[in-house]
Amino acid sequence: MPKPELLETFPNPYADRNYEIFMETDEFTSLCPLGGIETDAAELKLLEGGAPDFATIRMTYTPAERCLELKSLKLYLWSFRNDGIFYERVVNRILDDLVAACTPKSITVVGDFNVRGGLKSIITATWTRPA
Amino acid sequence: MPKPELLETFPNPYADRNYEIFMETDEFTSLCPLGGIETDAAELKLLEGGAPDFATIRMTYTPAERCLELKSLKLYLWSFRNDGIFYERVVNRILDDLVAACTPKSITVVGDFNVRGGLKSIITATWTRPA
Amino acid sequence: MPKPELLETFPNPYADRNYEIFMETDEFTSLCPLGGIETDAAELKLLEGGAPDFATIRMTYTPAERCLELKSLKLYLWSFRNDGIFYERVVNRILDDLVAACTPKSITVVGDFNVRGGLKSIITATWTRPA
Amino acid sequence: MPKPELLETFPNPYADRNYEIFMETDEFTSLCPLGGIETDAAELKLLEGGAPDFATIRMTYTPAERCLELKSLKLYLWSFRNDGIFYERVVNRILDDLVAACTPKSITVVGDFNVRGGLKSIITATWTRPA
Amino acid sequence: MPKPELLETFPNPYADRNYEIFMETDEFTSLCPLGGIETDAAELKLLEGGAPDFATIRMTYTPAERCLELKSLKLYLWSFRNDGIFYERVVNRILDDLVAACTPKSITVVGDFNVRGGLKSIITATWTRPA
Amino acid sequence: MPKPELLETFPNPYADRNYEIFMETDEFTSLCPLGGIETDAAELKLLEGGAPDFATIRMTYTPAERCLELKSLKLYLWSFRNDGIFYERVVNRILDDLVAACTPKSITVVGDFNVRGGLKSIITATWTRPA
Amino acid sequence: MPKPELLETFPNPYADRNYEIFMETDEFTSLCPLGGIETDAAELKLLEGGAPDFATIRMTYTPAERCLELKSLKLYLWSFRNDGIFYERVVNRILDDLVAACTPKSITVVGDFNVRGGLKSIITATWTRPA
Amino acid sequence: MPKPELLETFPNPYADRNYEIFMETDEFTSLCPLGGIETDAAELKLLEGGAPDFATIRMTYTPAERCLELKSLKLYLWSFRNDGIFYERVVNRILDDLVAACTPKSITVVGDFNVRGGLKSIITATWTRPA
Amino acid sequence: MPKPELLETFPNPYADRNYEIFMETDEFTSLCPLGGIETDAAELKLLEGGAPDFATIRMTYTPAERCLELKSLKLYLWSFRNDGIFYERVVNRILDDLVAACTPKSITVVGDFNVRGGLKSIITATWTRPA
Amino acid sequence: MPKPELLETFPNPYADRNYEIFMETDEFTSLCPLGGIETDAAELKLLEGGAPDFATIRMTYTPAERCLELKSLKLYLWSFRNDGIFYERVVNRILDDLVAACTPKSITVVGDFNVRGGLKSIITATWTRPA
Repeated sequence: MPKPELLETFPNPYADRNYEIFMETDEFTSLCPLGGIETDAAELKLLEGGAPDFATIRMTYTPAERCLELKSLKLYLWSFRNDGIFYERVVNRILDDLVAACTPKSITVVGDFNVRGGLKSIITATWTRPA
Repeated sequence: MPKPELLETFPNPYADRNYEIFMETDEFTSLCPLGGIETDAAELKLLEGGAPDFATIRMTYTPAERCLELKSLKLYLWSFRNDGIFYERVVNRILDDLVAACTPKSITVVGDFNVRGGLKSIITATWTRPA
Repeated sequence: MPKPELLETFPNPYADRNYEIFMETDEFTSLCPLGGIETDAAELKLLEGGAPDFATIRMTYTPAERCLELKSLKLYLWSFRNDGIFYERVVNRILDDLVAACTPKSITVVGDFNVRGGLKSIITATWTRPA
Repeated sequence: MPKPELLETFPNPYADRNYEIFMETDEFTSLCPLGGIETDAAELKLLEGGAPDFATIRMTYTPAERCLELKSLKLYLWSFRNDGIFYERVVNRILDDLVAACTPKSITVVGDFNVRGGLKSIITATWTRPA
Repeated sequence: MPKPELLETFPNPYADRNYEIFMETDEFTSLCPLGGIETDAAELKLLEGGAPDFATIRMTYTPAERCLELKSLKLYLWSFRNDGIFYERVVNRILDDLVAACTPKSITVVGDFNVRGGLKSIITATWTRPA
Repeated sequence: MPKPELLETFPNPYADRNYEIFMETDEFTSLCPLGGIETDAAELKLLEGGAPDFATIRMTYTPAERCLELKSLKLYLWSFRNDGIFYERVVNRILDDLVAACTPKSITVVGDFNVRGGLKSIITATWTRPA
Repeated sequence: MPKPELLETFPNPYADRNYEIFMETDEFTSLCPLGGIETDAAELKLLEGGAPDFATIRMTYTPAERCLELKSLKLYLWSFRNDGIFYERVVNRILDDLVAACTPKSITVVGDFNVRGGLKSIITATWTRPA
Repeated sequence: MPKPELLETFPNPYADRNYEIFMETDEFTSLCPLGGIETDAAELKLLEGGAPDFATIRMTYTPAERCLELKSLKLYLWSFRNDGIFYERVVNRILDDLVAACTPKSITVVGDFNVRGGLKSIITATWTRPA
Repeated sequence: MPKPELLETFPNPYADRNYEIFMETDEFTSLCPLGGIETDAAELKLLEGGAPDFATIRMTYTPAERCLELKSLKLYLWSFRNDGIFYERVVNRILDDLVAACTPKSITVVGDFNVRGGLKSIITATWTRPA
Repeated sequence: MPKPELLETFPNPYADRNYEIFMETDEFTSLCPLGGIETDAAELKLLEGGAPDFATIRMTYTPAERCLELKSLKLYLWSFRNDGIFYERVVNRILDDLVAACTPKSITVVGDFNVRGGLKSIITATWTRPA
């Protein structure tokens, strides 16, 4: 289970200015949920979940009152490692968790997933703070 | 014959938010129809169609009520393999079939075809859901 | 002499939709006209024209009633091979000939010429169908 | 079934000199045989074989008495399109067929197959004419 | 624990010829063992092991009597996912397990690990069948 | 401590025209402040600060009355070398110091920091002269 | 001294159409003026100027009545070779000289200078013909 | 017809030392001879030969008594422009002509031809001066 | 001062097999010693040393009885940060210190230094254990 | 005139060990001598020499008693700037001058010259100290 409670924040030291923070990891991995693509029962038992998925995750936000603490973000992303979760949910879930943690002015999360069955998938979701 | 009946969809788990899904395969192949470029009768007999074409297909859409299921999309794209079909029709046909399957908010299909006779071709078509 | 009479077209199979066709060749060659850069009399005699020029030609158009047939386009571009013609004329001439052949909704032609005397040249011309 | 009878040759015009001919195509496709990786019964029926495989094939040889004719080589490689065949057999089969067609001084065939299940495979086989 | 018992083999169909098989995955992941670099107690608890490591694994071998079956190799490599293991052991362990499974004529295993603390590591080990 | 007093300027020789100056260095280094990511007490003693950080810094401005002198900018950027400072502060501090030094029409500073713990960070801040 | 008198022009053969001409050379060299960065008296004597600077110069313009002749442009750019001149002046001077020579509809000149002291500089200036 | 009589040489200024000269052009073009690949009668008439071929030619030699003069080499390579000639002959013919012109200690000629019908060809021939 | 006493080792877990360990960092920095290239008195005072140098360091060794511990290697390389030292000494000093720490079967150290005054330098030194 | 008297050396601090020093600059420029390729009288007058040539120079040597001092090497290479000199002479002259300055165990000089008239040239010369 993703663990949003791992996310920590600190006060934005330049809160009076709009500036952008981009963070990227090419070390994201989760599992394909049961019944997913290219997974069969034997493999699922091996991992107590599904076949591994790999992705690059990119996050870009304009902080408001608080900034995301980098090391806690790393731990939060690690918490997907043994979770069975679909691509669409990975990206929207990260978006929701980061919004809940720091309520930025705006934020975009991109999940750029490795080729599976000859198909590459990239999912992009954005949230903007209501005026 | 392309088989749009292979396409499957599932309910969009984040239907209240606009987000974008990009899918790409560099393993698309179809045949040049009879009388096409660089094809002659002997080759056509060999393949019971025309000379092979190869392309990268890119699809980007904003889902509405339903999302395209990845494995079924792969099977649908495979169904062009032994079909004789012109470049323009490949791209517009995929666009029409994906729209019919999931009626997204908007969708763009790009066919990036390998060089033939020293000429590269890229065809791009877009559909937007009427307001 | 460029031979626009070689250009053939076919009816646009999706004429009710705006879509874009991009075509590119990196095998365009023509000759530098008499008196051009880096050409002298001895060389001109050799080729009965001027020194060879090489370019990548990129053509992007939105078809209206008719599409350009790819093989005939290839033959048309070959017909510049032994012609002495300046860069600006190559690009604008191709633009004019393609417009005359298929009267698209809009079209852009780019000529990306190889380095001569340490200088690279790229010429870009656009035509839009009057409303 | 691969059709080695399509291969044609012509007399080596420089048979008194050792020189090397390299040929490469990134448009090779065949099918995974029944029971292969990532294939199930439904997909096999679709293609009357197995899931599609894609590869770049590289061939390097030193001709002896005869050279391989390029267009016939292209047709020969096309003849694998709807054949179910394992990677190891693709490469060794092409090697055997080319040796049978032109008995070169030596020849190497490389099959560089697209990623399947996160794994890339490259197979390399060589044949040298006995002294 | 790595599970070498997952590895399957099949008879080499061209056992009378030396040829080379290269296989590569950029989706290898394991865990840093307890007390390893850049790991602390809190993170270890999260994963019931250590911090995640990521690597590209490259395997090149000349088969003798038997070849490695690709899908079983994939499952074997997945079995390192939640194991705490040092870089040197990853590479030498895979080498030992593959040798035990198929006793090739020769084999090389390369582990190309992601940067940690600004340092990239690549480990290369080779085994040759005694004459 | 960063030393903004090192920054020197000279009169803009083309002050009547808006033009853009971009400057980039991939040789920026500072230290992680106490308690920062991947730093422990032993390392801090070694450097009398924290673990080293490395970044590419990009600065783009439209000069008004005065331009930044390049050599003095180099010395100013060197002055961060043994300073413990967070990413957000590096970028906003450079922005503030350059604005104070030359009050340009507008300026953007980008800090593109090396991967730490598998995460890359890029921070972008902009200042525009009030009308 | 730069020699704008070397610049020659010819009548725009397609003056009734807006089109763009891009020209680039990566062989621009000039000298750093006295007192410049990384120059000392001994070096200056060697070159009777300052240390050499190297740049890529990019020029993009929409011709009006006249086009720039390529060979004369090459000679003009060569005339900076032994001139001591600052970066800002190189770009703005070329812009002014090209405007004076052909009065285009608009023109942009970019000077992309090699790294000096770890810092890369790119200067961009634009001129538009008054309405 | 290729014109080897265009080749000029000059005395090797460092004839007492073995050193290597590499020359490359990516602007080689010739014609496919009658009956060649992807050529038909209509196209042949257009060019009074066959379809155009394009190649990069690489020449590496160790000069003996004489060196090849660069400008004359350029003119010699231009003389293939409107000649119908097969790939194997292009490379071996250039090798023979350069050997006849300057009798180097050794020389290698490579012809790296553009993709035709999905197949790339590279031909390599070498000549060494008898002891 | 470089601190070789920071280097730690551990017993080679596969000491009966020759295998190779490659380690690379692009985050090495030291200072140019007094009187070095492109340094003047004012800058030296700033850093209590000389101008900063940056390099990529590559180390490849075949371990004998002991392996180098990665984290201690990182700390050792950090200890050059504020040291004035010439390129040749950086590479040979690291070689000597690593040999002293683990006495491998063989080792190569490469220092690939950033451009200074338009010149890039790469130094390579090797040590082999006497038989 | 090239000025070998500018070259300075210092005692090799590790003279008891064979190690390699590679130095490269992509900022070498000289002039084409009178009567050279693509040069005419008008241009020669402009530069009091010939048309500019540009090259990347690579030097690799194993020092014996003395090493080449980097800054003096830079000044030496600058001294070709306004000299008319052929490619073959540039490379062999630098080789001779460096050998005379430091008599290394062995040395290789490569001159990688920019494209002229569509032809790139690379010259490589080596010197080894007699036993």
